[in-house]
Amino acid sequence: MQIIPLGGLGEFGMNSMAIRYGDDILVLDAGMMFPDAELLGVDIVTPDFSYLQENAACVRALILTHGHEDHIGGVPFLLSELDVPVYGTPFTLALVERRLEEHQMLDRARLNRVKPGQKLEIGPFSIEFIHVTHSIVQCVAVAITTPLGVIIHTGDFKVDPTPTDNELFDLHTLAAYGKRGVLLLLSDSTNVDRPGYTESERAVAPRLEDLFVRAPRRLVIACFSSSIHRLQQIIDLADEYGRKVAFIGRSMLATTEIAHDLGLLTIPNGILLRPQDVMQSVPNKVVAIVSGTQGEPMSAMSRVAVDNHKSLSIEPGDTVALSARIIPGNEKAIYRMMNHLARRGADVIYGSTNPPIHVSGHGSSEELRLVLNLVRPKYFVPIHGEYRQLAKHAQLAQHLSHWGLEGTFVLESGETLEIDAAGARKGAPVTVGRVCIDSGTLDEVVEDMVIRDRRHLSEDGFVLPIIAINKHTGRSETLPEIVSRGFMSMEESSEVLSEARQVVLRTLESSTAEERGDWGVMQEKIRADLKRFLLKQTSRRPLIMPVILEI
Amino acid sequence: MQIIPLGGLGEFGMNSMAIRYGDDILVLDAGMMFPDAELLGVDIVTPDFSYLQENAACVRALILTHGHEDHIGGVPFLLSELDVPVYGTPFTLALVERRLEEHQMLDRARLNRVKPGQKLEIGPFSIEFIHVTHSIVQCVAVAITTPLGVIIHTGDFKVDPTPTDNELFDLHTLAAYGKRGVLLLLSDSTNVDRPGYTESERAVAPRLEDLFVRAPRRLVIACFSSSIHRLQQIIDLADEYGRKVAFIGRSMLATTEIAHDLGLLTIPNGILLRPQDVMQSVPNKVVAIVSGTQGEPMSAMSRVAVDNHKSLSIEPGDTVALSARIIPGNEKAIYRMMNHLARRGADVIYGSTNPPIHVSGHGSSEELRLVLNLVRPKYFVPIHGEYRQLAKHAQLAQHLSHWGLEGTFVLESGETLEIDAAGARKGAPVTVGRVCIDSGTLDEVVEDMVIRDRRHLSEDGFVLPIIAINKHTGRSETLPEIVSRGFMSMEESSEVLSEARQVVLRTLESSTAEERGDWGVMQEKIRADLKRFLLKQTSRRPLIMPVILEI
Repeated sequence: MQIIPLGGLGEFGMNSMAIRYGDDILVLDAGMMFPDAELLGVDIVTPDFSYLQENAACVRALILTHGHEDHIGGVPFLLSELDVPVYGTPFTLALVERRLEEHQMLDRARLNRVKPGQKLEIGPFSIEFIHVTHSIVQCVAVAITTPLGVIIHTGDFKVDPTPTDNELFDLHTLAAYGKRGVLLLLSDSTNVDRPGYTESERAVAPRLEDLFVRAPRRLVIACFSSSIHRLQQIIDLADEYGRKVAFIGRSMLATTEIAHDLGLLTIPNGILLRPQDVMQSVPNKVVAIVSGTQGEPMSAMSRVAVDNHKSLSIEPGDTVALSARIIPGNEKAIYRMMNHLARRGADVIYGSTNPPIHVSGHGSSEELRLVLNLVRPKYFVPIHGEYRQLAKHAQLAQHLSHWGLEGTFVLESGETLEIDAAGARKGAPVTVGRVCIDSGTLDEVVEDMVIRDRRHLSEDGFVLPIIAINKHTGRSETLPEIVSRGFMSMEESSEVLSEARQVVLRTLESSTAEERGDWGVMQEKIRADLKRFLLKQTSRRPLIMPVILEI
Repeated sequence: MQIIPLGGLGEFGMNSMAIRYGDDILVLDAGMMFPDAELLGVDIVTPDFSYLQENAACVRALILTHGHEDHIGGVPFLLSELDVPVYGTPFTLALVERRLEEHQMLDRARLNRVKPGQKLEIGPFSIEFIHVTHSIVQCVAVAITTPLGVIIHTGDFKVDPTPTDNELFDLHTLAAYGKRGVLLLLSDSTNVDRPGYTESERAVAPRLEDLFVRAPRRLVIACFSSSIHRLQQIIDLADEYGRKVAFIGRSMLATTEIAHDLGLLTIPNGILLRPQDVMQSVPNKVVAIVSGTQGEPMSAMSRVAVDNHKSLSIEPGDTVALSARIIPGNEKAIYRMMNHLARRGADVIYGSTNPPIHVSGHGSSEELRLVLNLVRPKYFVPIHGEYRQLAKHAQLAQHLSHWGLEGTFVLESGETLEIDAAGARKGAPVTVGRVCIDSGTLDEVVEDMVIRDRRHLSEDGFVLPIIAINKHTGRSETLPEIVSRGFMSMEESSEVLSEARQVVLRTLESSTAEERGDWGVMQEKIRADLKRFLLKQTSRRPLIMPVILEI
């Protein structure tokens, strides 16, 4: 048996894990990540699924633990390469359907709804879904009984003792597996750095209620559209305090409709306000729930911040709260949004307030210990985290190993674990990586080489010497032309570039006839001489690309 | 009288403030900021000092409150444009000297050492320096008595009741000014979002001591080289627990030497270890104090993390602590560094630990209230913060206005305040802005246009159609050439680009003789047609720059 992390181990996001027993492969989750700033011009990143493509005949199913983008965002890309049945809870699949529809792939997808407690037989695997609590509804862990023993994959979780929908984490089933014996636990490491317990989702209620009590005018709350528990709490408070509710933003409208249709979101009759009616209503009788918490430039909240949204304008005295996590890397964009809102006269609430305006959906170290103690696995692999988090989770497990933990393995994506009757050990690596996608269509992959060029261009622009060569004489008959952009301003560069033309000319003239006969050689010589000249004159290193035109 | 913020109000960093009375101008601080990621290829950013240049004959002095980069980093740039005497404490000036030396400007700079309690008369201004506590030593607030009344500028501060050097915040002098009456307070807003009091610098001692007690092998602590209080605490603990101390990193070596020479850092005899001797010493008898806390790629700590430092290697079991603030925008770089260190087997400590491994140098809301209550100004302008922070600080002051606060003004850089016998009001704006500098030399300014081009290039690269035109016939005799980089990979783009050549050819052929006679028109037509074609074919918007060669 092999455990093959395809994404999300040693990196943040794009979670995907393959479990192989002989010729049967199960895939758990197929997520995406948003690109780092250095991936210039890339919109989304998915795992490289080539291992699954190469073993397409063996892949039996894709199982989804929950509906967050870092677990389902790669599904259209995986299904475009592989025709495989998908299993997930109704809410998870409804979110997947939305993505598949965008790519016109919904017709041919084989989506199968499952619910917690349900069991499935797929090849040699017997699969049970176990309800866990998290910041999204209908979230499951998966217990996979294999011929070698039971594997438990937690998905993402926290152990919320008082979830707003009263659907408790099914600790009993986890405990029962633990009692019978578990071969391998794969457990979420996101919040291993945090001591103690993560607060219950209900912990945000006092702060939210305070907003409803105090906001003198319009109340605007930005949160993740998939945080159905959070939305329900806001709607309940709106009902109690006599405010109408407007959902604003494309994903907010879509997700609340899905959740309402599935009976996961209770919306009192007559409480909803259409976005276009918000500005016509009495300001202190409205709460707008807006998507776009991370300062994404095209999101509803970002547009509202710069007063460029068609149905919502901020006016002095309005209250704007960010009820969401600040994802590392997005701080500056979020603060910029908050500055704009403050400039419009809004009272802005965000960050680590007390009582909290947001609580995490991931378990802190005590909850991770609880799950380890309940499951009592023989082997443990921390999942979902950067390396420092996986390492810390492994350390934490080793300190608890009193029940007989035989091995803890810190794997990064592409590193595999092999398990047989003799035990577990690291196996041969498989090809993984990231696929960078432009504009969100399935086939516009941006190659590493192209991104490298963009990075070079973004630093110092380009300088292009153009040499026209007479194809009969093989000689350049005019002075070389040089064009540049992103290098220096026109005025500044004119002198440098006119000297640069002389440099190119000298390179041409000082070359032997043999060199001049080989354009590749000439291009390389010109590049090298020009690079040296420009570095010395300007301390800059533009991308230099000599062009030789045959006339 | 005019209050003219040149930088640092409504933006983070590059603090600079001018105070003008008639024909006399005082400048307080001349800082820099590190650029946002979108300022491609820019190394540092300083305020645009053109207001001071235009009024050069009126500028009497530059007064520095303390030695942090966001207060002194712009000094060489200001002095290169303006010959003006500089006043600051010895440590502040020593750090300025280092910067001036790098730019070969030390000889002609007029640096004047001052100390807390000292008074200066400059033009119509009578200036007193007041000791404040902050994360750097020898930090002052400035009281400026003008013909219209007293202005107090706090610089950066916290109110540390137990500073490690026992040099308390001089609240008495502040109170005395407050009692006599203060016209205007300018006060630091950095931590206005935090409730309560910022903990004393001594609060990091328990966590640091814990590191010395528990670290089984080498102990590596990354911190700001200018945090002399922090360094002293680490050195004292090293002495107590029998570890030798190695300073690692260029700025760490330079700053500790300056602080030691000035008697601000006490280093027990024989405790220092040369960087090159660290790896030869018994691992549990060494602490390395390393600069580079923000994941800057060329810093010592970043090099250590990727095992590319000449004198320090991380080995399994080493302990690495980040005893510094994570500056917003640097999270990803810092976490990447921590991941590398964890991969090498280090136990890594960073972030919000309890007890804290780092405390802020800026006062929280209660300290800001304390200063407002002591100074009891007639007018208040919050300084040093982004807009949301300035707005919150103004709000906080208004809630305290029982002593007779007559006006609070939220100014952003370039907005001015005018004060005369009749009162204070917003005045006409002055030209401010940011100057983007490449490679840290004084004259390599990157213009906005160039940065805009780089941003465009970084998104989708460039496509350059090159058309050779016979200067006798005015006709293109060969097929247009097209070169591109950062756009699509070679294989993908070859078909698109060969079609694009036909597009250019068609544009040429369909143009009238008159159009063909005007190269500007032809370039614009080609750009427009090609842009439309490429957007349709590839959804990308590369920078298109048609080049017409006259042969």
